[in-house]
Amino acid sequence: MRLALLAAAFCALAVPALAQTSRPEPGPLTIAKQGSFFIGGREVKSDTLSTLPNFDAAGTITVDQMYVRYQAPAGQTGVPITLIHGCCLTGKTWETTPDGRMGWDEYFLRQGHPVYVIDQVWRGRSATDPSTINAVRTGKKPVDQLPTVFSAGHEGAWAIFRFGHQYPQVLPGMRFPLAAQAEFWKQMVADSAANLPTPNPTVPALSELAQKIGGTVLMSHSQSGIYPFQTAALSTQGVAGIISIEPAACPDPTADLGPYKAVPILVLFGDYVDEFPRWAPRLKSCRAFAAAVSAAGGKAEVLALPEIGIKGNSHMLMQDDNSLYIADILLRWIGKNVTATR
Amino acid sequence: MRLALLAAAFCALAVPALAQTSRPEPGPLTIAKQGSFFIGGREVKSDTLSTLPNFDAAGTITVDQMYVRYQAPAGQTGVPITLIHGCCLTGKTWETTPDGRMGWDEYFLRQGHPVYVIDQVWRGRSATDPSTINAVRTGKKPVDQLPTVFSAGHEGAWAIFRFGHQYPQVLPGMRFPLAAQAEFWKQMVADSAANLPTPNPTVPALSELAQKIGGTVLMSHSQSGIYPFQTAALSTQGVAGIISIEPAACPDPTADLGPYKAVPILVLFGDYVDEFPRWAPRLKSCRAFAAAVSAAGGKAEVLALPEIGIKGNSHMLMQDDNSLYIADILLRWIGKNVTATR
Repeated sequence: MRLALLAAAFCALAVPALAQTSRPEPGPLTIAKQGSFFIGGREVKSDTLSTLPNFDAAGTITVDQMYVRYQAPAGQTGVPITLIHGCCLTGKTWETTPDGRMGWDEYFLRQGHPVYVIDQVWRGRSATDPSTINAVRTGKKPVDQLPTVFSAGHEGAWAIFRFGHQYPQVLPGMRFPLAAQAEFWKQMVADSAANLPTPNPTVPALSELAQKIGGTVLMSHSQSGIYPFQTAALSTQGVAGIISIEPAACPDPTADLGPYKAVPILVLFGDYVDEFPRWAPRLKSCRAFAAAVSAAGGKAEVLALPEIGIKGNSHMLMQDDNSLYIADILLRWIGKNVTATR
Repeated sequence: MRLALLAAAFCALAVPALAQTSRPEPGPLTIAKQGSFFIGGREVKSDTLSTLPNFDAAGTITVDQMYVRYQAPAGQTGVPITLIHGCCLTGKTWETTPDGRMGWDEYFLRQGHPVYVIDQVWRGRSATDPSTINAVRTGKKPVDQLPTVFSAGHEGAWAIFRFGHQYPQVLPGMRFPLAAQAEFWKQMVADSAANLPTPNPTVPALSELAQKIGGTVLMSHSQSGIYPFQTAALSTQGVAGIISIEPAACPDPTADLGPYKAVPILVLFGDYVDEFPRWAPRLKSCRAFAAAVSAAGGKAEVLALPEIGIKGNSHMLMQDDNSLYIADILLRWIGKNVTATR
């Protein structure tokens, strides 16, 4: 029954695989406005900012701000979309793919949507605080207080991103452009999120951004999958819709569902999920969450792409060879379900 | 005599201060092509990538790659410009100013130039390596091997950026938008450059980028001021011109000047330089370098803005209230001196 409903909802989209990847060369793009800014941020005083003689050890820095780059198209026809990357990555996730194809940032723009791309706090162009490292280095703090910061190695990330079960084995039908994997690894950065409070300070920053925009779809991925839900729990103001792509977690179905009933929600998963012990329970718990929201009178759907005949998608499906085809599915869902509250 | 020559070279530009800041609202912008990619990068194997159970400690990561975002205008008329930020900052330097005005990235584009904005290696969207921190944390390396990473505090940065001699005193006639200083501080990030070899791996990456573009002006700032010169010393291929803004250092005038003779060079300084012991010797040594290059038959100029009647510019002159006026001076210099070698 659920499959039949899904098939009805997305029926026009289950076309042959070949048609998923062919795209004509795009023409020029006309931008009404673009730029960048920060949201949030707090001042921190420290006496271990530096160990270099040219830069004072003592002083004030600003951290927890979130970098945002935006572009709005001439002739806007769609609701603004905010793109929120996942673990060990930055806003680069949504830009040009490792094999040089158009990213979702530009594609959504060309379909009439203003696009906001963020770097999570303490990642990319959003500052980290080095003062604990320097405090340990100068003997002012013990070694065990060093910050938790990690990088995901290619080999370990391989299964997390579902390129294959074991590095360098490749799943049959894999759509991620692994010939360009060296370019993908360059996108990965060290991750400090484990140091940060819950919710991650990116969440209140997203809330402030959504209210500043005056209505946006929050589109998150993996580690940040939960962030739009946490944002809605702070306030649904400005949250016109939620698209959570392969979230590491969905909200607890037994929690207060009030905020989630007020917002149209789509949770999207790629292929091979059931083969991976890391991923199968996540899909399952997102289904339970969506069912609970729907039962409570809200609108929450889970779409696993194989259910509508789309096979071979990795965890990094915004970079897979059929990425624009998947973008079209999301745009259709937005067009049908999201009302811009501008 | 030098002043007379400068006045002749930039004569049309010494207009009243009021005209420096008024700009009409820009219309739509048509982009022929945009996107992002990385240049360079090397693989590092480590057994201390992580201290978290969910992410393997052992594996391979990629570091030393340089993030590049580019936009090319429809109807390109100018040589490509590559924007290289300075210490403790990222490519954000060249984007929307702290008080919300257009950045040089978009302004140059609107004047017909393809624009490339980079994040230096180990900064912003260009990955750092956390493995030494985790090696110390797990007792595999001693504390004194912790990486050198620092942040510039607001108070110390105040005099470095020449907002005033002492925080929070402001120099008379200051053009930096200090009412928006809180937004500026959010641009600053921790800096790992002191860990890296000389030349910084950003330099060979700039060389590869310049050759890939097939001719670009390398426009650097402060810490990166020397990078275009170091790039030219590797190879002048692709280096169509150098604009070094307030460099921390110019090349030694007694070094081999061959590479610098082959490229048109402009070194730009703002106001108040002679009042600051950090800055005055830098301007002086850049003058000696430019004189040596010119004497050897090259084309190298130093322009200190007060010499042509432009007063009040800080070290962050690409964000000062007359930033677009200064951009026009640079574009005029490019138009006169740089031939695209495409």
